[in-house]
Amino acid sequence: MTRAWTLQARPNGMPVATDFALIEMPAAALQDGEVRVANRWLSVDPYMRGRMNDVKSYVPPFALGEPMQGGAIGEVIESKADGIAVGDMVQHFLGWRDEAVLPGTQVQKLPDLAVPPQQFLGLLGMPGMTAYFGLLRVAEAKPGDVVFVSAAAGAVGSTVVQVAKASGMTVIGSAGGADKCALVTSLGADAVIDYKSDGPLVKKLMTALGEIGKDGIDVYFDNVGGEHLDAALATGNMHARFAICGMIDIYNSAKPTELRYLARLIGMRIRMTGLLVSDHIGHAAEFYRVMGGWLAEGKLHNSETVFDGLDAMPEAFLGLFTGGNTGKMLVKV
Amino acid sequence: MTRAWTLQARPNGMPVATDFALIEMPAAALQDGEVRVANRWLSVDPYMRGRMNDVKSYVPPFALGEPMQGGAIGEVIESKADGIAVGDMVQHFLGWRDEAVLPGTQVQKLPDLAVPPQQFLGLLGMPGMTAYFGLLRVAEAKPGDVVFVSAAAGAVGSTVVQVAKASGMTVIGSAGGADKCALVTSLGADAVIDYKSDGPLVKKLMTALGEIGKDGIDVYFDNVGGEHLDAALATGNMHARFAICGMIDIYNSAKPTELRYLARLIGMRIRMTGLLVSDHIGHAAEFYRVMGGWLAEGKLHNSETVFDGLDAMPEAFLGLFTGGNTGKMLVKV
Repeated sequence: MTRAWTLQARPNGMPVATDFALIEMPAAALQDGEVRVANRWLSVDPYMRGRMNDVKSYVPPFALGEPMQGGAIGEVIESKADGIAVGDMVQHFLGWRDEAVLPGTQVQKLPDLAVPPQQFLGLLGMPGMTAYFGLLRVAEAKPGDVVFVSAAAGAVGSTVVQVAKASGMTVIGSAGGADKCALVTSLGADAVIDYKSDGPLVKKLMTALGEIGKDGIDVYFDNVGGEHLDAALATGNMHARFAICGMIDIYNSAKPTELRYLARLIGMRIRMTGLLVSDHIGHAAEFYRVMGGWLAEGKLHNSETVFDGLDAMPEAFLGLFTGGNTGKMLVKV
Repeated sequence: MTRAWTLQARPNGMPVATDFALIEMPAAALQDGEVRVANRWLSVDPYMRGRMNDVKSYVPPFALGEPMQGGAIGEVIESKADGIAVGDMVQHFLGWRDEAVLPGTQVQKLPDLAVPPQQFLGLLGMPGMTAYFGLLRVAEAKPGDVVFVSAAAGAVGSTVVQVAKASGMTVIGSAGGADKCALVTSLGADAVIDYKSDGPLVKKLMTALGEIGKDGIDVYFDNVGGEHLDAALATGNMHARFAICGMIDIYNSAKPTELRYLARLIGMRIRMTGLLVSDHIGHAAEFYRVMGGWLAEGKLHNSETVFDGLDAMPEAFLGLFTGGNTGKMLVKV
C-alpha cells in the first residue's frame, strides 16, 4: 500500500489539521513509459494554499479526496521509461505522498551539481529560480541598486539576499524575530528589520535606510504584501521596480490590502510586476550555470527546516503561516 | 497692474474657495531675453492638487502667497527674446494669472496644426500626450487589446478612448452620469460603465465585458484609483499592463486605498507602472505627427469645458473633483 495526503475540506481562512486526511491506496501497476519513484523529500510551499480554494487560478484547485500535488524529489525504484534507470534521483510534481507513479516525461533527473538532493527543492529549485529570475529579470536589479526583500529568512527571500549580494547590490531584509534576523545578517544583508518588533514597518525601513546612508529603495522583492508593500511604496526611488512574488499576508484572509502610499507609484514612476517562475523556466540553464559558479566559490549558503516523515506534512504546511520555517520548508519521507 | 491667483492656505482634504486669493501686482519690467505674454487660456488639471500640499514630490509645492503655476497659452505682447515676435501664440507654465513675464527659452511656439489654440492644453497638449504615451509606451497596448479606461470623459481619458479606437483596440470606458457616458460612446467606446449607478464597479465591468464578448482586460489606464483599480485587477488577463496616471479618488483624502484583488497581480503576472508625461517628452514629434494625421482624417474629437475669466479659476479647479468637467477643463482669460 502507498500513502498520500488528500484535501478533506476546503479551508476557510487559516487551514486546520482536519482539512487534511492521509489515505492508503494500492500501488498502481506500471504502464509502458512510466516510472515508480520512492519520494525522499517533499516540498512545502506557501502557494499551495491557493490550490486549496475552489477558484480559477494559474494552477487548478486540488480536488477534494484526491492526493494533493507539489514538488518532490525521489529515487526511481522501477522504470518502463527510456533513459531513466532504477537508482536515478529525479524531481517531479507528485508530492504529498510516499510513492509516485508517472510518465517518464514528467520527471527530471537532478542537475549535476555536488549538493544534497533536497537543495533542488530550495536554493537550486523552484524557490531559488523564483528569487533569481524575479530579482534579475522581473525587477531588473542592477549592481549598486538598493534592494528590499520581505520574508528574507524564507526559501525565496534568503536566496534573494544572496543573489543580490553576489551581484553587488545593497540589501535590506525583513524577517520575524531575532533568530531569523541573525540568519539574514549572516547571509550578507546590509541591514535587517524585525517586522515583529514594535512600531510601523515604514519607520523601521526608513531607519534602516538611514543607517546604511541611503535615501530609498530601487528594488522591492515582495513575499508578504500588506504593510511591507506599503513601506516599499513609501520609500521607492524614482523608477523603482517591484517584483511581486507572494502575499502570504492575505493567503488565509478575505480582508482587503490597505495601501497608504500607492499614489507614490505615479510620482516616482514605480513599476510593480507579478512574478511566476514558470514564465522564466526557459532560462534555467543560465540559472544553474551562474548559481553553480557561486556555489563553487562558497558564496551561497543553504538553509532549510526539515520535518520528519510523511505524517508531518500538514504540520509543516501550517508552519509556513506561523513563521515556523527558516529557509526552505521540507518534509523528509 | 496684473492679477494672479495665490495659495492662501494649504487645503486639508477637499480645497475650499478661501484657500485661494487673487492678488494684484505691478507689471514687471522686461529684461533682455524675456517675453511678456497676455494669457488667453489657462489649464486646469487634477495634478495641481498635489502641489498644494507641503510635501516633496516630482514637482515642488506651491509657496503660500506666491502666484501659482500651470499650463497656459497666450499671445506675446512684448519681446526682448530672439526669434519670438509680438503676436506669436505660445504655451508656457505660468498659468493662474492674466499676464506672464518669463525667459523666451521657457515658452514654446504652438505647433503648426490647424486647430484652435486651447487644444494644445488638451487633446494636443499635456493631457493628450499623457494619454498617447501612457497607452502606447507605458502600457504597451497593441491592436486587438481590450482597454479599460477610467474617467473616460475627462481630458486624458477621452483621448485614451480615441487613441485606442484609432489604433484598433476594444475600449471600455467609465464615466459618471448619463451625459458623460453618452460622450464616451460618441468617441467610439465599445462599452461604457456609469460608475455613479448602483452596484459594485467590478460587477459592472464584468457585465460590460460579457456584453462585448470578452473575458477580461489586457490594458487598464487608471485616472481614478480605488475601486476602479480593484475592478481592473479583478478582470486583468494574463500579462495585463496597467498605466497608472492618476488617482483622483485619493487626492483630497488621507484614507488608504483598499484592494481586494491585488493578489491577482501574481497569478496573472500583471504589470502596474506609474506614468508621468515628462518621461516621454522626447517623443513629442511622433505624437504631433500621428495625432496630426488622425486629426486630418477626422478621427479625433475635441471636448472641453470652459469657465470664463481669471476670477473663475478656483471654481473650475474645484469642479475637477465634483465631476464638473467633460473633456479638458479650461479657463478663458
